[in-house]
Amino acid sequence: MIDRYLADHVLPMDPAFSLYSPGFVDVAEGRVAAVGPAAGAAALAPGDVLHHVEGLLLPGLVNCHAHSPMTVLRGAGEGLPLQRWLREVIWPREARLGPEEARLGMLVGAGEMLQGGITTSAEMYFHSEAVAEGAVAAGLRTLVFPAVAEAPGWERFGTAADMIRSAVALRDALAGEDLIEVGLGPHAAYTLGEGALREVAETAAAERLPVHIHVAETRTEGDGVRARTGLSIPAYLASLGFFGPRTAAAHCVWLDGEDVAILAAHGVGVAHCPGSNGKLASGMAPVKALRSAGVAVGVGTDGPASNDNLDLWEEARLALLYSRLREGDAGALGVEEALRLMTCDAAAALGRDDLGAFLPGRRADMVRVSLEDVVYDPVLAPRDLLGHLVWAGSRRDVSDVWVGGRRVVEAGRCVTVDLPRERAALRAAAARLAG
Amino acid sequence: MIDRYLADHVLPMDPAFSLYSPGFVDVAEGRVAAVGPAAGAAALAPGDVLHHVEGLLLPGLVNCHAHSPMTVLRGAGEGLPLQRWLREVIWPREARLGPEEARLGMLVGAGEMLQGGITTSAEMYFHSEAVAEGAVAAGLRTLVFPAVAEAPGWERFGTAADMIRSAVALRDALAGEDLIEVGLGPHAAYTLGEGALREVAETAAAERLPVHIHVAETRTEGDGVRARTGLSIPAYLASLGFFGPRTAAAHCVWLDGEDVAILAAHGVGVAHCPGSNGKLASGMAPVKALRSAGVAVGVGTDGPASNDNLDLWEEARLALLYSRLREGDAGALGVEEALRLMTCDAAAALGRDDLGAFLPGRRADMVRVSLEDVVYDPVLAPRDLLGHLVWAGSRRDVSDVWVGGRRVVEAGRCVTVDLPRERAALRAAAARLAG
Repeated sequence: MIDRYLADHVLPMDPAFSLYSPGFVDVAEGRVAAVGPAAGAAALAPGDVLHHVEGLLLPGLVNCHAHSPMTVLRGAGEGLPLQRWLREVIWPREARLGPEEARLGMLVGAGEMLQGGITTSAEMYFHSEAVAEGAVAAGLRTLVFPAVAEAPGWERFGTAADMIRSAVALRDALAGEDLIEVGLGPHAAYTLGEGALREVAETAAAERLPVHIHVAETRTEGDGVRARTGLSIPAYLASLGFFGPRTAAAHCVWLDGEDVAILAAHGVGVAHCPGSNGKLASGMAPVKALRSAGVAVGVGTDGPASNDNLDLWEEARLALLYSRLREGDAGALGVEEALRLMTCDAAAALGRDDLGAFLPGRRADMVRVSLEDVVYDPVLAPRDLLGHLVWAGSRRDVSDVWVGGRRVVEAGRCVTVDLPRERAALRAAAARLAG
Repeated sequence: MIDRYLADHVLPMDPAFSLYSPGFVDVAEGRVAAVGPAAGAAALAPGDVLHHVEGLLLPGLVNCHAHSPMTVLRGAGEGLPLQRWLREVIWPREARLGPEEARLGMLVGAGEMLQGGITTSAEMYFHSEAVAEGAVAAGLRTLVFPAVAEAPGWERFGTAADMIRSAVALRDALAGEDLIEVGLGPHAAYTLGEGALREVAETAAAERLPVHIHVAETRTEGDGVRARTGLSIPAYLASLGFFGPRTAAAHCVWLDGEDVAILAAHGVGVAHCPGSNGKLASGMAPVKALRSAGVAVGVGTDGPASNDNLDLWEEARLALLYSRLREGDAGALGVEEALRLMTCDAAAALGRDDLGAFLPGRRADMVRVSLEDVVYDPVLAPRDLLGHLVWAGSRRDVSDVWVGGRRVVEAGRCVTVDLPRERAALRAAAARLAG
C-alpha cells in the first residue's frame, strides 16, 4: 500500500538539488518508494491513499549535536561568565539530575524539535536509557550517545570502562527499537585519558558503533592537549587510531588547515553549532574550509542551556552569516548549502545514509512548511521560495511532520507530546534541580 | 477616560529594568498615564475600561534602520556577489520602481513589522510621499527620511538641493499626521559631495529635522573617503559640522576608537544592523565600545533585500552573538542590553524621547508576547522569562500590538493590512520590476 503526498512544492534534497512544483512523494512501509514531479507519478492502485499537502514538503531535519535533556535547565545561570556558569549552576544541577529529569527533558525537547521540523537528533548525555525512553515516547528518531568521561563528578557513573559497557548493553537492549541507534559518546580529548580514548575506539570497531565526540570547541582546550601531547586535538586523536568509519566531531571551531585535512582523510563528520559557539563566545568554525576539503558538515543546536532553543532553521542561517563574516565574502556559503547543512549533509555527517533526502529506500521523515507568512513572497519562480525559506523562514512555520511515515505534528501541534501538560512537570523538575 | 491593561507580566523598559508580574499600564489619549505592579494600580473611574492581557506586555519595538519598500524586492538576486547583486539586479529594478511600488512595499513591510512587534520604523527611501502613505495606511509610526544622493541613477530625482527641498515640503505637507516624522536621509559620505553634505546639515539645523545617514558599512567606503580627505568618515563628517542634535548613523561597522569617540562627543545615535552586515559580509560592528562610550545604539533590520525579513527579535539576538564573538567574551552583551537595543535605546538613537518605554507621557505603543510556546519554560522566577524572550523568542510569538493605544494586531494578525490580499499585488509588482 502506498501513501502518496502530493504537495505544491517538493524539495527532495537530492544531489541535483531538484525542486518539483508540484511534486509527489510515495511512501510505503515507512520509507520513500518514489519521488518526482506530480505529472510523472504512476497511477495509484486500489487501497493506496492520496494526501494533498499545501505548501512545501522537504526531508525531516537532522540535528547533528544536542543535549536535549538540558531543556530542564534552559536559561539557568543566564548572564554568568562561562566558568561560573558551569561550576555554580550547570554542574551542581546536573549532579542532582536523575533518570526522571533526563526522560522528561528529552521528551519536552523532542516535542520542541518535532514541532520545528527536526525528525532526527544526535544526543549525547547520561541516564541514556531514560533519554531513549523520552525520545521513543515522542516518536523522534534518535542517535543516543551515552557520555563517557573521566572528569570530576563523573565517578558517579563508574569508570570509563563501565560507561562503555553500559552503552553496549543499552544498544543490545534497544536492538528492536527502530527509532533508536545507540553509539558511544566520549566527551572530549581533554576529559578522557589515552587509555579510555583507545578503549572507546576499540569497542566501537568491535561492536560497530557510531562515535560522537566534542572537538576543539574552545581555544583553550586545544592548548591543553597540545601542552600534554605536542599535537592538535585532531592529530592526537588520529595518532591513537581513534577515528572509525562513523565518527562525528561536534563544534570543530579551532582547527588549522592540517586539522581540516586530518578530519577529511579519516572521513570524520562535523556537527557545526553556531548558536552555542556564539552564545558562549567560542568562535566561528571554518565551515567553508571543511566543506571544500570534502568533510560532511551538518548543523546542531547543542544543548538548550547554551542556545536556548532547539531551532535548526536558526542554526542554518547562523552558519551562513558566520561563514560570510569569517571569510569576508558574501559568496562563502549560500542557500543550497544551508538547506544541505540541515538535511542530507547532516545525515552524512552522522553516517546515516537512510536519512536526509527523499530518495527511494530512505526513511519517510517529512516536514511540511506552511507558506502562509508574508515573508514567503514575492515569488516569481518556485525556486525563489528556497531563499525565503533559508533567510526568512522559521521553525514556527512548520505545520506537519512525519517520522517513518507516521504523523507526529499536525497543524503545528506535536500530537505525541502533550507539551502544555509537560511544562508543569518541567517547572517542577527545574525547581528540584535548583535545590 | 483610562484604558487599563492588566498583564501577567509588564516589562516597562524603565531605567531600573523593572518587571511587574502581574503589572498594569494605564493609557489615556494614546499615551502612557501610569505603569506599575498590579497591586499598586489606582481605582478605576466609571467609563474606564479594564483589559486583561495574558502573557507579557512590553513597549513597541523600534526599528532603527530600514528600507521597507524593498519588500517588493525580497530575495531578488539571491546568491550573487554584492557588486553584481547591486548592478544587475537591485539598481535596474529600483530604476523602474515608482510611487505605487514604494507605497505597496511599505504597506506590506509595515504589516510584517507590526505582526512582529515593531511599532516604529526609521525608513530611508525615495518616493517618500508614497512611503508615508503606505505607513499611515498600516498604522505604523514612521520616521521618513527621503534619500538624498548624488550617485549615478539618482539624477531622476534632480539635484541634492531638489531632494532636500522636497523633503522639507513633505514635512510641511504631513505636519498634521501624528504617525509620521519627516527628516533628511543623506545616503552616505561616499555618495554625496561636500557641498551637499553641508547643505543637508544647514537645512536640518534651520528646519529642525532629524538626519539619517549610512556610515562605514563596508571597509572600502572608508578607504575611499580617507583617500579623498585624509580623514575617517566620522572625522570627515565632524569636520563639516555635519552632526546635529538628532543625527543617526546606520551600520558603523568599520570604526576605530577615535571614530567611536567622535560619535559619542556629537551625540550621534547608531543603528546596528547585524543581519544585513552578515548577509553582505560587511563585518561586525563594535557595539560594546559604542555603548561603553555612551553612544545610544539600537538595532535595525535594514532592507528586506539584504536580510530578508523585518525581524527585530532576530537582530537583537544577532547583536549579542556578534558582540560576544567579536570580543571573545560571553559577558560582552547580555539579555538586558538586547531588550534595550530593541526599545528604549533604539528610541534614544533616533532622538525620540516619546518612544521605547512605558513611562508616563510616552506613546502607548505596546506589544503583547504570548508565552504559549514551550521555549518560555522552565521559569522559576518571572525574570527568567526575559532570557527566554531574548534567546528563544520569536516575532511569531507576538500576538497583539497597539500603536498610540490603537490595536493594529489581534491574535497574531495585522488588522490594518490585508496581507493575504496584498501578497498578490506584491507578486505582480515584483514581476513588473523584474522587467
